[in-house]
Amino acid sequence: LFVWPFLSQAADPLSSWNDGPAKESIINFVSSVTDAQSKDYVDPTDRVAVFDNDGTLWSETPIPFQAAYAFDEIKRRSPDEPQLAADPMVQAVLDGDVGKLLEGKHHDGLMQVLALTHAGMTTEEFDTSVTAWLKTAKHPRFQRAYDTCTYVPMQQLLGYLRANDFKCFIVSGGGADFMRVWSERVYGIPPENVVGSTGQTKYVVRDGEPLLIKTLDHLFVDDREGKPVGIHHFIGRRPIACFGNSDGDQAMMEYTTIGNPLKSFGMIIHHTDADREYAYDADPPSSGKLTTAMDVASERGWTVVDMKTDWRQIFGDESMDSD
Amino acid sequence: LFVWPFLSQAADPLSSWNDGPAKESIINFVSSVTDAQSKDYVDPTDRVAVFDNDGTLWSETPIPFQAAYAFDEIKRRSPDEPQLAADPMVQAVLDGDVGKLLEGKHHDGLMQVLALTHAGMTTEEFDTSVTAWLKTAKHPRFQRAYDTCTYVPMQQLLGYLRANDFKCFIVSGGGADFMRVWSERVYGIPPENVVGSTGQTKYVVRDGEPLLIKTLDHLFVDDREGKPVGIHHFIGRRPIACFGNSDGDQAMMEYTTIGNPLKSFGMIIHHTDADREYAYDADPPSSGKLTTAMDVASERGWTVVDMKTDWRQIFGDESMDSD
Ligand SMILES: [Ca+2]
Ligand SMILES: [Ca+2]
Repeated sequence: LFVWPFLSQAADPLSSWNDGPAKESIINFVSSVTDAQSKDYVDPTDRVAVFDNDGTLWSETPIPFQAAYAFDEIKRRSPDEPQLAADPMVQAVLDGDVGKLLEGKHHDGLMQVLALTHAGMTTEEFDTSVTAWLKTAKHPRFQRAYDTCTYVPMQQLLGYLRANDFKCFIVSGGGADFMRVWSERVYGIPPENVVGSTGQTKYVVRDGEPLLIKTLDHLFVDDREGKPVGIHHFIGRRPIACFGNSDGDQAMMEYTTIGNPLKSFGMIIHHTDADREYAYDADPPSSGKLTTAMDVASERGWTVVDMKTDWRQIFGDESMDSD
Repeated sequence: LFVWPFLSQAADPLSSWNDGPAKESIINFVSSVTDAQSKDYVDPTDRVAVFDNDGTLWSETPIPFQAAYAFDEIKRRSPDEPQLAADPMVQAVLDGDVGKLLEGKHHDGLMQVLALTHAGMTTEEFDTSVTAWLKTAKHPRFQRAYDTCTYVPMQQLLGYLRANDFKCFIVSGGGADFMRVWSERVYGIPPENVVGSTGQTKYVVRDGEPLLIKTLDHLFVDDREGKPVGIHHFIGRRPIACFGNSDGDQAMMEYTTIGNPLKSFGMIIHHTDADREYAYDADPPSSGKLTTAMDVASERGWTVVDMKTDWRQIFGDESMDSD
């Protein structure tokens, strides 16, 4: 199990960050909003921080990890389920045609595959399935469990913010149900603090037992302009700190930092480290395109993290033993 | 302002409850799930309690308070907005025909009126409007601000549960946006812990400012079978304690208490006190019909609170000075 290896280290709560303007900007922001004498002081209840997940808290390459789960599910189930296998997007998975799945503004084929593999199950069956997958599947390059491919500097940042009475939320295009299975164990972020893409469930009583069945109804895609919408829907107030890594986070970064009556902060994680992780921006291997958000970052006062120079460490060491 | 008048009283954190089986059942439940030596011990992160609002935390008679807000809005706006006034349900409001508004499973006319008066505004304009209304409007019988018509025994119960590391959520058929304006000030329940009926907002940037516009899209009615659906959608895990007052709470009461692997608790507030508040069940003045949930309460082990005998006090005294 992944047991927060870095938490015991540190006189410096951000010890995995190299000294530099990125680290300094975080500390300055947190110091100013928590200093009761500062004009920028923010009451703890309003200290809401939102984090994109894929590419911000953990890797998203070569494909987003939820897609890896769905693809493994399809490979496992399609021999016995011809109806599933007949779907063109399921065929694209079986053919390894990732490009076809990633076409469209919201990666429509991928969304279809996620929906097909997730719908019809009870929420408990889905939890069990995701949990079982995380125990056995390995990241193809790092050869470790997917839930150990989280970034130590971001885990430290979550801890640092929480120690300063921030409430930390995930706001991700990924499925809320998928993330809620492991978000508390992996990030210390409880299910109720996970905002994500959702389909409505259906309440049924089967043999006297209340159950919720996952459906494809009322699909909400928590991406791009959907992110501020999701924030309002689930959290009900404006964040003061926003962390992302792609153009999909630009709208929530703007919602957090433009015209906010409270002191606010935006940060973009730029993937620049091909040796230790990946290097991409305008032309990513799968998700994570970063162009327009980068163009306006300086004008908006957003901090851009250069993974290669700003992060002393990427993944946790002890997590290599995770299984 | 309403300043928790009862919080200073009390060696007994539930001093506004008379001794009896209802009070005893709460204390027994909380004691067992917080006792680390008990087989029924529940980890704090799983101590999720859900509360219906109208008729459970505050009054809902003669009409739900959000309806009172919407009706006042209609009377204020319709002279200048003929399009609004042309709607048959708006006419029903102007004619005082509450019966017509309350027809249908979810009080469809009322829902229509709420949607019409709430949509098209920015979320900030809506907040301002609700705040202004709460400062001036008075409950027609109690002649005090609506947000002071909350039940002291339930406020104490919220405090008692929080002191025992419960996370308390509202799960109401009322609008999430409406409740989030005042839930933290009035109940100590922050916006992110409010589950309610929702319409999707639309994100726009107007004159460089990011805004969210309330719309009628993707209406979700957080009532009846919608309550467990809303709990899963917003909270992402099963509660262990559920408090309600009508058949609209039965599904979430069942979801909380039937087949829950954790020790669980259900409580129904029965309005039996015509002198101090109201007395109704099968045939309420507006919302709050209580028949089927009452029929199964004993079999399910749910506690039924008799307001008249179980509650020493209904409303807070000092709140009379609230404006
Ligand atoms: Ca991302
Ligand atoms: Ca109610």
